[in-house]
Amino acid sequence: MSAPATAALPVGLGAAVTNRVGIGILGATGYTGAELVRLLSAHPGAELLGLSSRRQAGHPMAQAWPALAEVEQVLDDDVLEPSAWQARGIDVVFSALPHGAFARRARAFLDAGMRVVDLSADFRLTSAEEYRGRYGMEHPEPSLLGKACYGLTEWCGSELAPARLVANPGCYPTAVLLATLPALRAGWWNGGPIVANALSGVSGAGRAPSATTHFVECGNSAAAYRVGEEHSHLGEMRQAARDIGLEGIGRGDHLGGAAPSGRDGAPSADARIPSLIFNPHLVPMARGILASVAVPLAHAVDRNEAGALYLACYQGRPFVRLLAGDALPETRNVRGSNRCDLALRVAAAGKMLLVFAAIDNLIKGAAGQAVQNWNLMQGWSETTGLPLSGWACA
Amino acid sequence: MSAPATAALPVGLGAAVTNRVGIGILGATGYTGAELVRLLSAHPGAELLGLSSRRQAGHPMAQAWPALAEVEQVLDDDVLEPSAWQARGIDVVFSALPHGAFARRARAFLDAGMRVVDLSADFRLTSAEEYRGRYGMEHPEPSLLGKACYGLTEWCGSELAPARLVANPGCYPTAVLLATLPALRAGWWNGGPIVANALSGVSGAGRAPSATTHFVECGNSAAAYRVGEEHSHLGEMRQAARDIGLEGIGRGDHLGGAAPSGRDGAPSADARIPSLIFNPHLVPMARGILASVAVPLAHAVDRNEAGALYLACYQGRPFVRLLAGDALPETRNVRGSNRCDLALRVAAAGKMLLVFAAIDNLIKGAAGQAVQNWNLMQGWSETTGLPLSGWACA
Amino acid sequence: MSAPATAALPVGLGAAVTNRVGIGILGATGYTGAELVRLLSAHPGAELLGLSSRRQAGHPMAQAWPALAEVEQVLDDDVLEPSAWQARGIDVVFSALPHGAFARRARAFLDAGMRVVDLSADFRLTSAEEYRGRYGMEHPEPSLLGKACYGLTEWCGSELAPARLVANPGCYPTAVLLATLPALRAGWWNGGPIVANALSGVSGAGRAPSATTHFVECGNSAAAYRVGEEHSHLGEMRQAARDIGLEGIGRGDHLGGAAPSGRDGAPSADARIPSLIFNPHLVPMARGILASVAVPLAHAVDRNEAGALYLACYQGRPFVRLLAGDALPETRNVRGSNRCDLALRVAAAGKMLLVFAAIDNLIKGAAGQAVQNWNLMQGWSETTGLPLSGWACA
Amino acid sequence: MSAPATAALPVGLGAAVTNRVGIGILGATGYTGAELVRLLSAHPGAELLGLSSRRQAGHPMAQAWPALAEVEQVLDDDVLEPSAWQARGIDVVFSALPHGAFARRARAFLDAGMRVVDLSADFRLTSAEEYRGRYGMEHPEPSLLGKACYGLTEWCGSELAPARLVANPGCYPTAVLLATLPALRAGWWNGGPIVANALSGVSGAGRAPSATTHFVECGNSAAAYRVGEEHSHLGEMRQAARDIGLEGIGRGDHLGGAAPSGRDGAPSADARIPSLIFNPHLVPMARGILASVAVPLAHAVDRNEAGALYLACYQGRPFVRLLAGDALPETRNVRGSNRCDLALRVAAAGKMLLVFAAIDNLIKGAAGQAVQNWNLMQGWSETTGLPLSGWACA
Repeated sequence: MSAPATAALPVGLGAAVTNRVGIGILGATGYTGAELVRLLSAHPGAELLGLSSRRQAGHPMAQAWPALAEVEQVLDDDVLEPSAWQARGIDVVFSALPHGAFARRARAFLDAGMRVVDLSADFRLTSAEEYRGRYGMEHPEPSLLGKACYGLTEWCGSELAPARLVANPGCYPTAVLLATLPALRAGWWNGGPIVANALSGVSGAGRAPSATTHFVECGNSAAAYRVGEEHSHLGEMRQAARDIGLEGIGRGDHLGGAAPSGRDGAPSADARIPSLIFNPHLVPMARGILASVAVPLAHAVDRNEAGALYLACYQGRPFVRLLAGDALPETRNVRGSNRCDLALRVAAAGKMLLVFAAIDNLIKGAAGQAVQNWNLMQGWSETTGLPLSGWACA
Repeated sequence: MSAPATAALPVGLGAAVTNRVGIGILGATGYTGAELVRLLSAHPGAELLGLSSRRQAGHPMAQAWPALAEVEQVLDDDVLEPSAWQARGIDVVFSALPHGAFARRARAFLDAGMRVVDLSADFRLTSAEEYRGRYGMEHPEPSLLGKACYGLTEWCGSELAPARLVANPGCYPTAVLLATLPALRAGWWNGGPIVANALSGVSGAGRAPSATTHFVECGNSAAAYRVGEEHSHLGEMRQAARDIGLEGIGRGDHLGGAAPSGRDGAPSADARIPSLIFNPHLVPMARGILASVAVPLAHAVDRNEAGALYLACYQGRPFVRLLAGDALPETRNVRGSNRCDLALRVAAAGKMLLVFAAIDNLIKGAAGQAVQNWNLMQGWSETTGLPLSGWACA
Repeated sequence: MSAPATAALPVGLGAAVTNRVGIGILGATGYTGAELVRLLSAHPGAELLGLSSRRQAGHPMAQAWPALAEVEQVLDDDVLEPSAWQARGIDVVFSALPHGAFARRARAFLDAGMRVVDLSADFRLTSAEEYRGRYGMEHPEPSLLGKACYGLTEWCGSELAPARLVANPGCYPTAVLLATLPALRAGWWNGGPIVANALSGVSGAGRAPSATTHFVECGNSAAAYRVGEEHSHLGEMRQAARDIGLEGIGRGDHLGGAAPSGRDGAPSADARIPSLIFNPHLVPMARGILASVAVPLAHAVDRNEAGALYLACYQGRPFVRLLAGDALPETRNVRGSNRCDLALRVAAAGKMLLVFAAIDNLIKGAAGQAVQNWNLMQGWSETTGLPLSGWACA
Repeated sequence: MSAPATAALPVGLGAAVTNRVGIGILGATGYTGAELVRLLSAHPGAELLGLSSRRQAGHPMAQAWPALAEVEQVLDDDVLEPSAWQARGIDVVFSALPHGAFARRARAFLDAGMRVVDLSADFRLTSAEEYRGRYGMEHPEPSLLGKACYGLTEWCGSELAPARLVANPGCYPTAVLLATLPALRAGWWNGGPIVANALSGVSGAGRAPSATTHFVECGNSAAAYRVGEEHSHLGEMRQAARDIGLEGIGRGDHLGGAAPSGRDGAPSADARIPSLIFNPHLVPMARGILASVAVPLAHAVDRNEAGALYLACYQGRPFVRLLAGDALPETRNVRGSNRCDLALRVAAAGKMLLVFAAIDNLIKGAAGQAVQNWNLMQGWSETTGLPLSGWACA
C-alpha cells in the first residue's frame, strides 16, 4: 500500500486582514449570489460596492431578499461595463451568473485588472469539445479555456495566491472529489468504474420556478435524474479526477504567476480519464449535498488504513472533517457551514472503499468555497469570514 | 448474451372474489399495521374481525388513528390466544409486530389451522446464524426457519397458493431485488460487487418517536446510516439474490403442499452469495423508497437489450412498470400505490447496468405486498383490493 | 338561547348505484382535475369518457400524471364542442378550469342537456358587481348568475337532486362556512366582526410553478397573504353566510325544478352581509386547510350547548365529524378523505365561540365535494365512491 | 385618537465592546441552549467558560451538536455549584433549562454575584397563583416572583442596565406583544376580546422526541393545539398586556437599582387584564412564529394612522421592521435573524386593527432576545453579536 506521499499541501494560517477590498457580485439575487452577498457583507476584508441583477436592477437588494435586511445596495444591471465597476473601486468580481452568461465578458474584466472568481461552469473544463457536449453550446470565450485555476480549495496547492481567474467548482464535484481524490492520488484505485450517488437539496436547481421544484411536486418525494453518464457535472469530475487525482497536477494558472502545470484542451476521451458513474437525486430539503462514493481498489485495505490516508491528506485543512467512530455525514451538520464532513467504510473484503461526504451546496459547494478561494488569493487565512460551525437547527 | 429463459412465471388473472375471509391483524397501530387496516378494510374479500395493539388495547382503532374514521373495531391486546381469534372466525393472520415479537407464537397460530403472513424479519432468513448476526438475538422459533414462503410476489411462482406461512419481504429488499433479480437470473452479473444505494422516507423507521425521526432533526436533511455491510436487511437481500437470482429457486414452502425447493439453514458464508454493498439513506419524506443499483456485467449490453430482459421478466405483472424514454422513478409516482416503477441505464461502455426502482415502502414494501401475497394464497387476482394508481399529490 | 330549529335537513341514504353515467372532466391535469380523475375512475357510477387539458392535449393522462397509472385515456383539447362530448355518451361535465375559462361555454353544455358541476369561482357569486370586484374581470356569462346551486353539500337541502348547474364552493369557504353556519343559523351571532384565520397547503395555489410555490421559498416557512378583506373567496363566504346563515335559504336553482328560493344579483353592500375578516396563510404541506374561526355571540354559551347545536346541525351527515374531548382538528386526519373535522371551544366568558375545521382542500374543498354533490344529483348515497377514511400517513 | 406619547424609549447606540465577559450556559444542548452557544461563541464580548447538560455531561458539545464544530467545550453537569462556575470566571449565566428546573437554584447564583438571564417561564409571571395554574406546580422560589426584569427588550426602557435577573419572554408572547402593545399603549383598544392566532415551527416544542413532533406525524400537516385560553403562555401575555400595554409600566426590577415600578403578585383576575384569545398551531417548519392578531378598536383608524403609530413606537429599534406596501410577514424572512417583521391592516370599517408578526422562535423568541437583553445589561449596543439579516434560504 503506497503512502499518501502526494497529499495536498498544507496552506498555513495566512495573514490577518488589514484592509477592505472592493467587491462586485454579478447575479446577486439567485441562491448562489444571495449567499455570496450574505457571506461577504459580514466578511472583514470585503466591501460590497456593486451588486447586479438582470431582472431586479434598480430595486434594493433587501427587496429582492427581505431576509437580507441590512444590505443597503440597490441592484445594478448585469451588463454594467467593467470600467464602471472599476471606477467604484471594485477590484474583485464574483460572478454567480448562469453558465454562458459571463464568459464572453470575462476577458474585459481581466483586462481591466480585476480578479475574477466565476461560479458558473464556464471555466472549469479545459476542453472546448467537452464543454460543447455537456452544455450544448460553443464555449463563448475559448481563449480562456485552461487559463483558470480550478478552485477546489483543498487541492489547489499554492495556485490560488497568484490566480487572476478562478473557476469555482460545481457543488456535486466538490463533494465527490473531496471524497475521491485521496484514494486516487494514493494510487489505490483499481481502474474499474467508480460509482458515485448523490442527493441534492432543491436549491441546487436554482431560483427559477419550474415543475420540478414546485413544492407540491418535489416536497415529499425523492427522484433520480440525469443518472449514469448524463449529468453536466460529470465532465468536470472526470477531468479533475484525472488531473488532480491521477496526474497529481493542478489545472494550471496561466493568468497568474505560477508555472504552467496543467493541460489545455486535453481530449476528453483520454484513456486515463476515470470511469465514473454519477447518479444524482433530488430530495426534499432546501440545502445540502450528500455523496456516497464507491471506489474499487487494487489492494484490500482496512478502515484504519483508509482513515490514516484521509487524515494525512486533509491535515491542517479546517473545512474538511473526517468523522470518527460510527458517525456518518448528515447534511444538517454542515448546513450553514463551509465544512465538508467525510466518513469512510470498507466493504467487499477490503476491496471497495466507501466514502460519504456532506456539504452545504450553497456554501462549500458554491459561495463559501468562492470566498475561501478569494481568501487565499488575498493571502489571508482561508477561514476568514467563513462559518466553521453550521446552524444547529434549520 | 443468454436469453431470459428463467424469467418469473406469469400468474394469470386469478379467480374473482366470491366470499369474505375473516382477518386478524397483530400490531395494527404501527405504520405497517395501520396500512394493512386501511387496505384490508376496503378489500372485497376481507372481513376485519380482530385488530390488536399492545399499547392501545381497549381503545377504538379510530382513536389511535383518527384518519381511519370508518374503522369501528376496538383494539385487542397483542397476547390474545389463537383459539380466541379462531372463535371469531379469523382464518388469516397478518402480523405487523416488530421482529422477535411474533415468531414464538407463530406455530400456535399455524397449528390452529390459520394461515399467517408475517411482515417482520423473523421468517425471511433461512439461517439461524445469519439471524443472530443481523438481529442480535437467538431466533425465537428456529424450527420454522426455512419453512416460510419468501413473499417477493413477482418471484414466488406458484408457491403462494399452498403457502401457510409467508415471510413478507423487507422494504429495502423489495426495491433492490425487483431491480436486481432479472440481471442475476439471466446470468449477466460478472461476480463483482453490486453497489445498491437507497433512500427511504421516515415512516420506514417506524412509529416510535426517536431523535433520528424528530421533525427538527430529520426534516430538512439527508443522512447516510448503517452503510456498506451493516444494515440488517443485507442478509435477506443476499440470500434472495443467491436463491432466486442465481439458483433459480424459491425458498421452499414445507408448510404448504409444494415440493421442497429451497434450502434450510444454508450457511451465510456460501461462496455463491453475491457481494452486495448497501448504502441506505434517510431523506425527509413520509413514504417511499428509491433504490439505485449498479450491477457489473460479464458482457457489455445496450439499453435495448436490458429493457427487453426486464420487460420479459415482468410481463403480465401488473405492479411492476418499466418506465420508457427518459423517465426515471420518483417516489411520488408510486406513493399510495402497490406499484414498483423501474428504469434502466447502462454505463461504463455497457459493462455496468444501472437499475432504479421506486416503491411506496408501506405498500409494495410492506402492507400492499402482504395483501398481494394473500390474494394469491386465496387464488384471487393479485390486484384485488390493491391500488394500481397512486395519490396524484400528497 | 334559540334552538337549532333551522338546522340542515338530513339527506337519507340515497339509492344504490345501478348504472354508470358518462363523465367528462375539463381541466383534468391540474391538481383539482387530477383529483377528480382519481376519485371518479374508482367510482362505481362513473364512466370516464372524456378528459381535457389545454396544454397536454394529445398525451395520455398517465403521462401527465405518472401516479395515475391505470387511467388509459388520452387527453382531449379543452375547446372540444359539447356536441362532441355528448356524442361519446357524456351526460355530466365537471369543469376544473380556472375561473373565467369555462363560464362562457357553460350555457352550450347546459343547452345540450348535460349537467354541469363547475369547480371554479364563476357561478358561486350572485352579483356581477361582486364578481368584477373580486376577480378583476366582467363576468363572462352574467345570464347564469344566480342560476346555480351553491354546492356546500351539507347545506343544500334538497336543491341538488334537480340541479343542472352546481357551483362547487371554494376550499376556504367550505371550511369556514361549515364551521360558522350552525352558529349563524341559530341566531347566536352578535353582529360583530367574525375573525377567521386559515392555513392552506401549497396545492391550494395550483399547479403552475411560481416564486411563491417554489420549494426553497415556501418549503420551511409560513406566510400570511391577502389578509383582512382582500382574499377573493371573501365575497363568496359573506354571501353564503348571509343567504344560508342568516336568511335560511339556499341560492336558488332556476335551472333545476326547485322553487326559486334565492336572490339574484343582490347588492354585495347589503347591510345584512356579516362582517367577516379572513386571514389566509400558506404553510409547507401539500394538502389541507385548517380554519380557526372566532364568532362573537349575543349571549354566553358553554361548550356543551355549542356541541349540542353542532351535533344537531350535522346529524346524519357522514362527512362532518365533531371531535370529542380534547381533540382538535389536524389536517393529517382528513388528508385523503372527504371529511371535515370540527372542534368547538368557548372563550371570553362564553361570549366568543371558537370553531376549528380541517378539510383536505383537494377533496372536501374541491373534487370530493364535487363528487358528493353529483351523488346527490343522481339520487345516490352521498358517500358513493368517496373516502371516509383518510391516508393514515402521507 | 390619542398620540403615542407613551411609546417605548429609544435606547441609543450603546458602548462598543472592549472586554470579554465570562459566560455560562445551563441546558446547552436543547434547541434554545444550542442557539445560545451558537450566537455567543461568535459574540465579541462573550467568552464561553461553562456549558452544562444533564444528559450529555462529560461529552464534547460538538458531539451533541455536530453542526457546532468549532465549540470545543466539554459539557458539565447541570448541578454544578455556582461557586464552581464563579471560580472559572463566569459572571453571567444564561439558563435554558425547562421551567421548574432552575428557579430553585437561581438565588444561589444571584447571591454569588452573578447576573442571570433565565429563558424558562419561571420568572415571567408575578403571581404565584397564576404560575400554579399555568404550569401545574408550586413556584419553586416564590421569593423571587416579581423581582425579575421582563425582558421584552423593546419595551424594557432603561430597566435592563441595572437588572440582575432577567426573565426572557416566551416565543409566542414576544411575537404577540410586539404586535399588540403599541395599540394598547396608545389607548386604541376598545376592551373587547383580542383574537391572536399563531403558527409555530416544530422546534418550539423542544428537542425531546414525542409523537407530536415525529416527522411522519407532523411533517405534512397543520394542527391546532391548546387553543382559546389553554396555552401556558397566555398568562404571560395577559400580564404584560396589562402592565406594559395598559399601565405603561415595566415589571419592576427590585434586584437591580431601578425604582420599583411594577407590581408583585397582582391577582390574575384583575379586571384590567385584557381578554385575549390565543390559538396556537403547529406547522411543519423547523423554526419561526407567525402571529396574526386582531385588536378591536374604540375608534376607527386608517392604515396610515396605524402605520404612524407603530413607526413611532419602534423608531430607533433595529430589530423591529414595519413592512411597507403590500408586504406581509413570512417566517423565512426572519429565519436566522433577531428581527421581528410587522405588518398592519385595518378591517371592519377601521374598527379592527390587524397586526401580523414574524419572528424566529429560537432567536428573537429565545436565544437572540436573551443576548439582546444581555447586551443592554452590559451597556453595549443591542445589536452586538446579533444577526440583523437572516439566512437567505434554509
